[in-house]
This record gives sequence, structure tokens and C-alpha cells, in this order.
Amino acid sequence: MRLIGILRSPYVRRTAVSLNVMGIPFELDAVPVFDKPERVTPHNPLTRVPALVLDDGEALIDSSVILDYLDEIAGPEKRLVSERGAERRHVLKLTTVALGAVDKAVWSAYEYRFRPAEIVHKPWVRHNDAQVVAGFTYLDAIAAKLGENEWMAGTQRMSQADITTAVGFTFAQIVRPNLGLAEKAPNVARFAARCEALGPFKAAAIPS
Amino acid sequence: MRLIGILRSPYVRRTAVSLNVMGIPFELDAVPVFDKPERVTPHNPLTRVPALVLDDGEALIDSSVILDYLDEIAGPEKRLVSERGAERRHVLKLTTVALGAVDKAVWSAYEYRFRPAEIVHKPWVRHNDAQVVAGFTYLDAIAAKLGENEWMAGTQRMSQADITTAVGFTFAQIVRPNLGLAEKAPNVARFAARCEALGPFKAAAIPS
Repeated sequence: MRLIGILRSPYVRRTAVSLNVMGIPFELDAVPVFDKPERVTPHNPLTRVPALVLDDGEALIDSSVILDYLDEIAGPEKRLVSERGAERRHVLKLTTVALGAVDKAVWSAYEYRFRPAEIVHKPWVRHNDAQVVAGFTYLDAIAAKLGENEWMAGTQRMSQADITTAVGFTFAQIVRPNLGLAEKAPNVARFAARCEALGPFKAAAIPS
Repeated sequence: MRLIGILRSPYVRRTAVSLNVMGIPFELDAVPVFDKPERVTPHNPLTRVPALVLDDGEALIDSSVILDYLDEIAGPEKRLVSERGAERRHVLKLTTVALGAVDKAVWSAYEYRFRPAEIVHKPWVRHNDAQVVAGFTYLDAIAAKLGENEWMAGTQRMSQADITTAVGFTFAQIVRPNLGLAEKAPNVARFAARCEALGPFKAAAIPS
């Protein structure tokens, strides 16, 4: 299978890290979607990444939907979100908070990226940044209670909540450096550093 | 259970329609999140809607995660996304395209809603609008082949792909009236009208 998109995208990267954690081999096709939309559109009418192109040519789109599929093919021993019940809800809740914080970091970052500096609208940036901070603050209270080998959602092994929290935090720090996230969410910072030191994360590091 | 958010939000509305289709009773708590964020934050640290508060007080957040839970409790006869396999992938793919088009309609609409008129950045609006049109154009080719009683993803009964397509199209027409979506995606327009005439949609109509 082929994963389309660059690892700087947290949506692409959480997919890549998940593939690594599950031990599913894939090829990364590092297409910068804004520079080469014509490479993405044939697989996704919305021209968004990631897209995951299966060996028969079928393309899956949206990281959450791709991860849902990967969980299905990985089987019960390797899936990153439990199949049902309270644990599924809990893992998805933390994943959603991390992903929502990522979404808002993207919104703030895009405010600078896609318009002339003189029409950046600071109140809108502040609105989104506040949600970024709120999301990681919520996750920080959970991370504060974790022992050395424990996982965000209290699972026996790493779950999607861990991957999305760590990948999301790393991303948010890069695109919103002025937010002081490492000070505001020190326990998430420590947790993210612990995850980023692991093989599956290092194998999908953001190119410098 | 209590669904927090207003039906003008396509994320809230697709959840409400889904609850109606599945026959799950709920109370709608029509909180306008931008006016009364303090009513949402206790249930969702990101202050986004919908939130679904269960009878024991647990709050689920993000429409896709809420719908995943509702599918689990609805059981195999009533769930709106099949539990696994090719049909699940297909339903989620169409749902994702519709939801992505909705996301981009929101981005364009927010460009006008949350900043002074003189700093609206038209190129960004055009970028997002193009994705709205692309999403519904893709869905239109599928809708063009549907018989009177057929569903978007070829399922035996209505699926989440149908609900999100119809709710998304209705919403996009309201917030992006100048896009001419009814002309660009006439088959989706016809399909959405067919859905909107059904009880579960009418029971979650957007207040005028």
C-alpha cells in the first residue's frame, strides 16, 4: 500500500506511525498537496491528504477512516482502537481531543500561510489558539497521572490516543511555537518525547 | 441522551437525523456554541458541537465518534455504517467526501463570519469553494445512477453516506448560495430533496 502525503501533516504522520506500530509495510509517497494537487486529486476528489492507495488501486481517504480500515485488517491483537465498548469510547475521546487541537493549530497556522500578512486576523488566531491550548491542557491532566510505561487511555499497549496525542503535540509545537505548549502542557510534552523516542515514531520523523 | 448543538450545524444535524433514523430517542439541547461556549466546554474541552451527553453524564464528542457509538448500540439491523469489509469502506468513503465538502463550506463561510469584510481573503474562499464543488461533483456522478429507491453506497437501506450527503448538501446550499450547487450537482440536489422529505430529516429540520 502507498501512503500519499508529507509527514509534516499530522494527519499523514499519525497514519504512518500507526502503520509502523502495527507492523504493516507501506510506501510513503511524499506529495506536497498544495504544490502538487494534481498528484492527489485522482485519489481524493477533495484533494486532501492522507490518501492510502491499496494494492488493487482503491484509495481510502481521511486519516480517521484509513485508521479504521487498518484496525480492521490488523486484527484484535494489533488494532489501535478496541473494537467496541467503553475502551473504544475512551480511546476515541482522547484521540478526538488531540485531533481537534491539531485541527485548530492548522486553522491558526493557515491564517498566516494563505493570506498576506496585513490581513491576518488576530482575534480568529486567538480563538483557535485557545482551543489548541484547551485541548492539550485537558490531555495534560491525564498525562500527569501516567507511570513510566502507561498509556493515555489506560490500555495495555499503545493506542491511537497515544499516537495522535504525541504526533499532534509535536506538530502543534512546530506550527504554533509562541503558544508555549511545553510549559502549558508539560506532562503531554514529556509523554510526547517518550513516544517520539520509539522506533515507529522515529521511522516516520518529520524531515528537517 | 442529550444532543448539544444547533441543527444549523451540519455536524449536529447529521447526528440528529441519524438518531431519528435509528429510532433512538434523544433531547436536543440547542446551544449556539459561539454565543454560549460556557454551555459546551464542560462537556467538550475543545468547545465544539455536537456533544452527546449520555444518561450517566458521560459526554461523547465529534459527530463521527458519536455516530460510531450509535452504530454500536443500534445493533446490526439498524446501524448506518456496516460493521466491516468493503461495504463499510464504501459507505465511509462517500460519507467522508460529503463531510469534507461540508468542512470546506464551513471554512469559506467562516471567512465571512469571523472577520471584518475588508480583510476577507477571496483566494482562500475560492480555494475552499473549489473543494466544496469538487466533493459534490464527485457525489453527483454517483447520485446520477440511482433509481428512485436506491441509496448512495448501494446499501439495502439508508446509510450514513445518504444522511451526510443530504444534510451536507442542504447546509452547503445555505451557506454558499453563490456556488450554484443545485446546477453543478443536480443529481445530489434531487437526492437531497428526496431525503429531506422523509420523516427523520423533517423531524430535525433547520429552524428558519
